[in-house]
Order: sequence, then C-alpha cells, then structure tokens
Amino acid sequence: MNALIVSTSKIYGSPYLAYLEKPVKAFFKDKRQLLFIPFARPGGITWDAYTALAAEKFAAFGLNLKGIHEFEDMSEALKSADGVFTGGGNTFLLLKTLYDHNLVTPLSAAVKSGQIAYMGSSAGSNITGLTIGTTNDMPIVHPPTHDALQLLPVNINPHYLDPIPDSTHMGETREQRINEFHHCNDQHVWGLREGSWLHVRPDIVTLEGPHTARLFRKNQAPIEIAPGEVNLTL
Amino acid sequence: MNALIVSTSKIYGSPYLAYLEKPVKAFFKDKRQLLFIPFARPGGITWDAYTALAAEKFAAFGLNLKGIHEFEDMSEALKSADGVFTGGGNTFLLLKTLYDHNLVTPLSAAVKSGQIAYMGSSAGSNITGLTIGTTNDMPIVHPPTHDALQLLPVNINPHYLDPIPDSTHMGETREQRINEFHHCNDQHVWGLREGSWLHVRPDIVTLEGPHTARLFRKNQAPIEIAPGEVNLTL
Repeated sequence: MNALIVSTSKIYGSPYLAYLEKPVKAFFKDKRQLLFIPFARPGGITWDAYTALAAEKFAAFGLNLKGIHEFEDMSEALKSADGVFTGGGNTFLLLKTLYDHNLVTPLSAAVKSGQIAYMGSSAGSNITGLTIGTTNDMPIVHPPTHDALQLLPVNINPHYLDPIPDSTHMGETREQRINEFHHCNDQHVWGLREGSWLHVRPDIVTLEGPHTARLFRKNQAPIEIAPGEVNLTL
Repeated sequence: MNALIVSTSKIYGSPYLAYLEKPVKAFFKDKRQLLFIPFARPGGITWDAYTALAAEKFAAFGLNLKGIHEFEDMSEALKSADGVFTGGGNTFLLLKTLYDHNLVTPLSAAVKSGQIAYMGSSAGSNITGLTIGTTNDMPIVHPPTHDALQLLPVNINPHYLDPIPDSTHMGETREQRINEFHHCNDQHVWGLREGSWLHVRPDIVTLEGPHTARLFRKNQAPIEIAPGEVNLTL
C-alpha cells in the first residue's frame, strides 16, 4: 500500500497545497491516471469547481488530475486509475457520497492491493482510518455507517489542535473529545498537526513534516511521536 | 411547551450550573417529579456519577432530581414526570442512547404536550432542534438518524464560538461549518453563545443572558439577535 495521509491541504500563510509540492510530486511521479475525489465540497463548492482548483495545482506540479465524476461509471474509473487524491471538506458528506455511489469497497481494495496510490488531506485523510469517529466536522448529513476505508488499523484526527492556553471557552478541547471517543471505542487515534503527514509504503510508515504527532490509546496517557519511522500497531 | 435551552452548564470561572440558579429554580418551581437524563456522559463518566453531580446542584437549589435510569421502565418514568433536565456531554451518544431505549418519541410528545418542562444544556439543548446536524461533538457512536426531539422548528448550535482573531489554525470556523450545513439542509440555526439560553413558553420565546445570539439562515447573511422576545420562525 502507498498512501500520503495529510493533516491539512493548507498551512497558515501559504497557498493551497504549496508546502506539499515536493512530496506530492514524488508520490505521484510516473502515474498515468490520477483521479480527484471532490465529494467533501469545502464551503459547499461544486464537484466541478473543487476539481478545477485541485487540478490547477496539480498541473503546476506537472501532474494531470481528473475528477472521478467526469467518468460515466465511477467504479470503472477506479479500475483504470493508479492514483487518487481525495480533497478535504466535510467528512460526513464525503463518506456518505462514497457510500451513495458504492465506491467505498472498490476504492479501499484498490489502495490495499497497491493498484492505486492514495493521497488524502483533512477529510480525505480521516476516511483512511477505521471509522470517521474522530472527525472534527459537523454531521451535516447522515452516512449509513461511520466505517471508513480502513486502510489503516487506527483512526486519524486531522488538524489536531493543542488546547488553547488561557481559553475561557467551556466547550471540550480536542483531547477531551478523543478521550470521550475512547470511552466507546478501542482503536488508537493519531492526532496529526497541521503541516504533518503520514507516508505509508509497503515496508515502512513514516511521520513527515516538522511536528510530532499525538497518539491517543484507550486507558493510556497520550504520547508524542517524533517524525521518522513510526509503528501504527504500537 | 415549556423549555429552557441552555448553551452551556458552566461559564468560565463559575461552578457547574451556578450562573443558572435563578432561572432553574423558577423554571422547575413546584415540580413533583424531576428526572435527569445522564446519557451524554461528559468525559465518559457513568450515568450514576453524572446524576449524582447534577442532583447535588439541584438539591442546593431546593429541587429533587432523580436519574431516569433509576427507574425499571424509563418510558413509564416519563409518564409520571413533570420535569426533565438533560445534561451535556456527547450529543451522538445522548441521541443514540435515547433511541436505544425508545425514549425519543415519548419524551418529545410529553414536552410538546406541556406535561414535562424540559431543560437541556449543551448536548441536551442540541437535541431540542430538528436534528443534531449542528452539534460540535465528535461522532463517537453512530445513531440511527440525526433526527432529534424536534421541539423547535430550527437547529441549535450550543457553545457558539466567534472566529478567533489572528488564528493561524486552518480548520473551519464555526460559522464556516454552519454555512456548510446549509449547503445540505434548510433549517435555521441558532448559535447560542456560552451564557445564553432560550426560554420557551406557550405564548412567548425569549433569549436570555447577556449575549446576542447568531442566527444563520440558508442563503442569507447571519444576523445578531438581541436578548428579549424572539421569533423562532423568523
């Protein structure tokens, strides 16, 4: 399996995908058929508009990206693809749309088999975990299940945010939310800070970018994981 | 219908429910059978521990509060109750547990008929809307639907948070999230800031507390609503 699981498509003060130019170019080098999955619709933009945005960036990287919805049969399109990028937005809408079009199983299988190199950012990364149970998004639609692509044996929390010092807000911190998740679920949760990504290859998984990741395990204190080789089944 | 729909049980620097002493006392005055619904389990605490916490506060207000789970038949318990307080915590867990015990329909009907005076805070307020589609919580469990008690013709967003000035975080603001909700849903959303609550009586609805509320309507710019009488079907 080859996957690039990115916390955010944008870091502060930098344009869309700009900080990821090198890893994206290397990851999708020599791919013939790259598909974009625009279903998360950030800000409610259309599939076409979102695809145009991503394709423009990819073109600047020398990569040709086509929207999966441009194909008459989206399942068939997956069969001839060797790369997929799923953009961020709303995780519930993304997962529900994948289920609506019966794409969860074929996409997951094609990535697991190594046929498709998969890159996701934000919501697109969330769905690589066991479930979307650790998304930060609003449940604007109701998917038939929270079960996701299950490429990883863990859950992802993208845009992981440390508690804000001296905050007077009484809503739960991200860490409190993930702790509540662990009262009802067992899987580990990787909190990926903005600027971080996981690079999954057949023989090694590495945490990339300048930050440590925060690993939450049920009934254990969270720990910080340094960039470099990591063990997802820790 | 009589309902007290509270954004948060705690405001910064003040103990649990303390700022609500006067309205809670007045709202539940002369009630004989007050039930607590502890299903939202903040921080994963048990139903018993959560009930003890709320009952202690209510006792200090001169009110006798019993956990709904202390009754053998929870639906039957609702029939003889004249007041219910649903505490905050995780909205998905709260709604799923209500559905698991077939309590959504009888609770909703008893509040709508005026038999039960209903107070909710945070997650307990979220479920008074049409759906829980504007909760801030993590989807730690999967309820069979997002449809909620539907006491109100709108949705609630508790702990409403204004954008943080100069934030470098790239995750969506609350307002962006609610805008995304409106790309898939039509109902108005009331953003209740911490310290605010709606007081619903048969003939009048008022916004209480020191803050304005932020009202989001599909395809319209959000507006600020001043405390005082409000129109939920605006």
